[in-house]
Order: sequence, then C-alpha cells, then structure tokens
Amino acid sequence: MSKMLEEIREQPLALERTLKAELRGMEKLRARFEKQRPRFVVLAARGTSDNAAQFGRYLIEVATGIPVSLAAPSVSTLYHADLRMEGALVVAISQSGESTDTNVVLEEAKKQGAFTIGITNEAGSTLAKIADYALLVRAGREKSVAATKTYTGQLLSFYMLAWALGADLDLDDLRRLPELAADALKLEKEIAARADRYRFMNHAVVIGRGLNYANAFEWALKLMETSYIVAERFSQADILHGPIAMVDQSFPVFLLAPPGPTWPVMNELITKLDGLRAETLVLTDRSVQGAPKTAIRIPSRLAHKPRKGHVQLPADLYTPIPYIIPAQMFAATLATVKGLNPDQPRGLSKVTLTL
Amino acid sequence: MSKMLEEIREQPLALERTLKAELRGMEKLRARFEKQRPRFVVLAARGTSDNAAQFGRYLIEVATGIPVSLAAPSVSTLYHADLRMEGALVVAISQSGESTDTNVVLEEAKKQGAFTIGITNEAGSTLAKIADYALLVRAGREKSVAATKTYTGQLLSFYMLAWALGADLDLDDLRRLPELAADALKLEKEIAARADRYRFMNHAVVIGRGLNYANAFEWALKLMETSYIVAERFSQADILHGPIAMVDQSFPVFLLAPPGPTWPVMNELITKLDGLRAETLVLTDRSVQGAPKTAIRIPSRLAHKPRKGHVQLPADLYTPIPYIIPAQMFAATLATVKGLNPDQPRGLSKVTLTL
Repeated sequence: MSKMLEEIREQPLALERTLKAELRGMEKLRARFEKQRPRFVVLAARGTSDNAAQFGRYLIEVATGIPVSLAAPSVSTLYHADLRMEGALVVAISQSGESTDTNVVLEEAKKQGAFTIGITNEAGSTLAKIADYALLVRAGREKSVAATKTYTGQLLSFYMLAWALGADLDLDDLRRLPELAADALKLEKEIAARADRYRFMNHAVVIGRGLNYANAFEWALKLMETSYIVAERFSQADILHGPIAMVDQSFPVFLLAPPGPTWPVMNELITKLDGLRAETLVLTDRSVQGAPKTAIRIPSRLAHKPRKGHVQLPADLYTPIPYIIPAQMFAATLATVKGLNPDQPRGLSKVTLTL
Repeated sequence: MSKMLEEIREQPLALERTLKAELRGMEKLRARFEKQRPRFVVLAARGTSDNAAQFGRYLIEVATGIPVSLAAPSVSTLYHADLRMEGALVVAISQSGESTDTNVVLEEAKKQGAFTIGITNEAGSTLAKIADYALLVRAGREKSVAATKTYTGQLLSFYMLAWALGADLDLDDLRRLPELAADALKLEKEIAARADRYRFMNHAVVIGRGLNYANAFEWALKLMETSYIVAERFSQADILHGPIAMVDQSFPVFLLAPPGPTWPVMNELITKLDGLRAETLVLTDRSVQGAPKTAIRIPSRLAHKPRKGHVQLPADLYTPIPYIIPAQMFAATLATVKGLNPDQPRGLSKVTLTL
C-alpha cells in the first residue's frame, strides 16, 4: 500500500490530535480578536496549502463577514512593494513552515503593522518562530510527497481560526469532524472499484463552488501530482464564462456537489454537462437531476443542521473535509491503476522553495 | 478573416479612444482619492474581465501599496454574507455591464459603505448606472465571442485607475500604449507561421508571473474558447509546487517572459522545462538561456525606463498589453488552422449570466 493511502487513512486520528491540542489556544486568540477585530485578512500559501487558504477565504468571509484576500507573494518577494497592512491579520500556511516566499510575506506584513499567524505542521519551523501566533496542524510527519492529512489539518485549522475571529460555530460540531472523516474513509472500496475506468484518462476538469471550490483545486492538484493528468479546475460559474467550450462528448468532468447554497447551480451545471454528453463523476449526498455517469454518495448526515438561537450557517459548512477524502483516495488509487507510485511523483520533492 | 482577428487589429485605435475620453475623469477621481484613500480594494469580475482584474490586482498593489482582493462572488450571491466594506473601493469589471453576480457584489458593497467603480464597455449598462463612477472602455462593439479589445481596454483602465489611486505613473507613458499595441501587431505574420505546428495539440500549460500572471490566464482562456485546448495556467512558482510532475517530453508549455523582476525566475523555469524536454514557446524580448523550441521576440523598446525624480517602477510595467496581443493572434490563428471558427465557440454566447 502506498504511503499516500496510509496517510489518507490516518486523517481521523490526526484531526482529533489537532483539536485536542489547539482548541485551548484558540480561546485566547478569540479573546484577543474580540478586543481588536482585524479590518481584513490576508492568506499566503503555495500548492496544497494555497488550496486550504482558498477554503479559509470562503469560510472566514461567509462566517465572519471580514473581507479576505489571497496574497500574491511576488508583490513582496520580486517587486518589493510595501503593502499597507495596519490592522490586518496575515496568515501564512505551510506544511513544512520553510516556504521562503510565504515567510517573506509574513515578515513584511509584520513590519507594516499586521498581526501574524502561521499554520504549519512543524513546531520547530521558521514559520512557527516568526509568526506572532503558531497554529500547529499536528498531523504527524507526512512522508508522501502528495499532501493529504496536512490538507485536512489545515482545513480544520481554518474552522478554529474562524471561530477565534468570532464566527458562531459550535465547538461540538468541530469535535465531530474526525468522525465525519472516518465515515468518508468507508468509501475506499467503492472508490477503488471506480478508478479502473479512468486508466487511460489524460485530461479532466474538476468543478466546485463556494466552500468546496478549494477542494476542486486540491482534487485537480492530486490528479496532476500523482497521475500526471492535465486536470483543470474551475468554479461552477467560471467554467460557463468560456472554458465549457472545450467540453465535448466523453470529456471527463469531476464535480463536488454537496447540499446547501451551491446545490442548485451545481445541479444545473451537471444537467448541462450531461446534455453535452460529458462523462461526469459527482460527489454528492443526494439525487442528481441530470444523469451523471457516476455518482458517489457521501452520507447525508454530514450536512450541517441549523441550530436554534444561532446565526444561520450554510448547510455545506462541514462538507469540505468529508468531500475531499474520496477525492484523495481516487487520486491515490488511480496512480496505482496507472502503474505509477503516488508517493514519488517525478520531479517533485516534499519541500519546494520558490520566490 | 475572423471578426476576432479584426478586433485584435483594432486595439491601438480602441486604446487611443479610451485614453482620450477617460483621462479627464481620472483627474477628478485622483483628487477624490487624495482626500480619502481606500483602505483596501476589491475587484469583482468573471471570465476575461476576471483576468483583467488579476492584472489590476498586481498593478495596484505594486504601484500604490494598497492591498487588493479578488472578490469571491458566491459569498454575496449564494451565501448572502454581509462583508464589512467601510472604507473599501469595490470595482466591478464587465464587458457588457450586465453580469448578474458582479453587479450584486457591487450593490452589496455599496450598502456596506464602499465607494464603487464600474469598468465596462457599455455606457448604458446596469453596471454603469449602479456604480458611483463608471470608467468606460470605449472599445466599440465587440462582435467576436472571444474578448480581445475589451481585455486590453480593461488593462488600460487599470493603469488609469492606479494613477487615480496615487501611483507615480507618467500619463505620457500611458499615451504610448496604443503605439506599443501597434508594434505588437506587426508580429502577425510570424505568429501565423508558428501556429501550424500546433494543429494537433490537445492540451497545454501557460505560465506567467507578476504583472503578466493575468496574461497566462487570458492566453489559456483564448486557447480553451477558440481551439478547445485543455489549457492550464499557473504562476512560475505554483507550477513548481506540484503540477510540474505532469510535464514530460513534448509537453507544450507557453511562457510570458518579459524583462524585469520576474525575468530571473522565469528564465530558470524555462531552463528546467527544456531539461524535461518540454516543447516551450516563449514570448520575450531578450535571449533566453535555456533552449526553447520557439522564442518570439517582442521589441525591447517596450520596456519601461525608470525616470529621474520618480518612484522606481518595475521594468515590466508596460509589457502586459504588448505581450497579450501575440497570444491573442496565436489563438485566433490556431483556431483557423484547426478548422474552427474562433468567432463562434461551441456552446458560448457573448453575455453569460451566472450567480
């Protein structure tokens, strides 16, 4: 078995470990932000961590109303611009904590007056040292080059961070996330059986929206890294503004279609794609109106239920962790079906240094 | 000849028209922003306009230091979150001015206290009406579904907007932009001769960085829309964080490599790609150290020259307009070589409505 698949299976335990160790610190952070709420939030990351940041962006905006920007590191690293960061919260996300560029963004922001947080899997890393506050993912060492358990650990970190920023999340719901991850792992056999069909797939498109938009990026990245698929990723709206022209009969399209606010538009798109005779594979927890070639049902009890006396939070709030796990398993299995080793993608190493 | 190619050729005139009509209004806007500088800027757009916004993001951050965020429209349109926009400048960019989602973002932001600007080609559009200030692109009606002259018009609009926000740009340099566009058009024959080689290309990767990162998105979008190429787009840094694994011998990679701050890292990547025996096509204005299969030289006098007594602005400042024009011509020609009609991509219409 690949290390990647081993690490995918470790996720419920890793998430539990992170929650146990980090929730206390979040209380202090929440008290801090109650006194001084950030004017806006900037997230800086690369690769898988950047996909987690994309999730963090939607979560923080939806659950707290604070505007969020994904940093363009070159503005600091190559153009050496001084950004006006007074009153901002700047968060760098890096598995290793040694990404040169995102560390530069963090240090520059600190100079410009921002409060800084580092989300990293490595307690002794540069990032953990230079950030005002270190949120540790505690996934245990990740041996596979393709990140999996650190990604879901980063998603969890963003739930905790959103709570610290004042979001009306229930900590008991967060404590259920490892269990939801465990449920998603039960799909392993079904996923393995499905992967065979894609042995000769060379390209694909992955589509998500809202809180699962980040997962579309992450699913595509896993397909690129482990199976060398030319995998594009779009939001449900963006593919309609041009790229859908390239979709013809048999074109493989993977979709994340959880319940909640994005469901109607995703379902409409699935119907449209079926009309184009694309080969759609849908992760969902309900009946799809179109006729996708393959629908993988994620157990519906994962949906977030609105609670009395609380702000109405969207029904897809807790879907991103259980929805990415089948996608991770799909990529790991497909690599094996293709005769590739998902743990050692050609030309990649675990820590990538860029400016 | 396709309408797309006709409209590509119209760009110098269209840019001149926009400059003449809009510069005066910019002076008032600059006076306004001198009194009250936005705390941050949010840009909302879809499709080609979203690529222009990506350029605007880099330009405004590099030239003014004001943090910029690209809006996630679903936060307003599907999740109905109220974002805290006091003191923000929110800009919607839309060729038609009728994009439902970006108009919703603008209206919501206005309610939350933001100052709003609409950048559009249509003076009578909803966007022009609802924005506090309308910046008109004045490209003339765009008949081809694949946007070209409105894209460069939007890039120009962002130079003017950056100036209004206090950037130390020289208006005489802006007045040279139509001339730079005319120079780039002279490459049409060379581009046409090159396109033949790509008759059977099915997928590709386009790479840019910094001020030309947006152009990588736009080049890829044109390839998807007009020639149905599965065209991925990455920054020079992002491709190294995973996706480079999919690049093997003969894999087509298109790169925008102008002089300036991004040149060293782009050149390093070209060398790496040549080592992987990828088929690289480079738009550049200088000698490339690697051995790209094809280098198209953009005349070097396009480079921005630092001026005495002014803030040091990057050497690639004025490259985005002349660098996208050969890419537009490439896409239009390739479509014809493939026996397709670039003016009527399958399944697309000129105005796309999404939420």
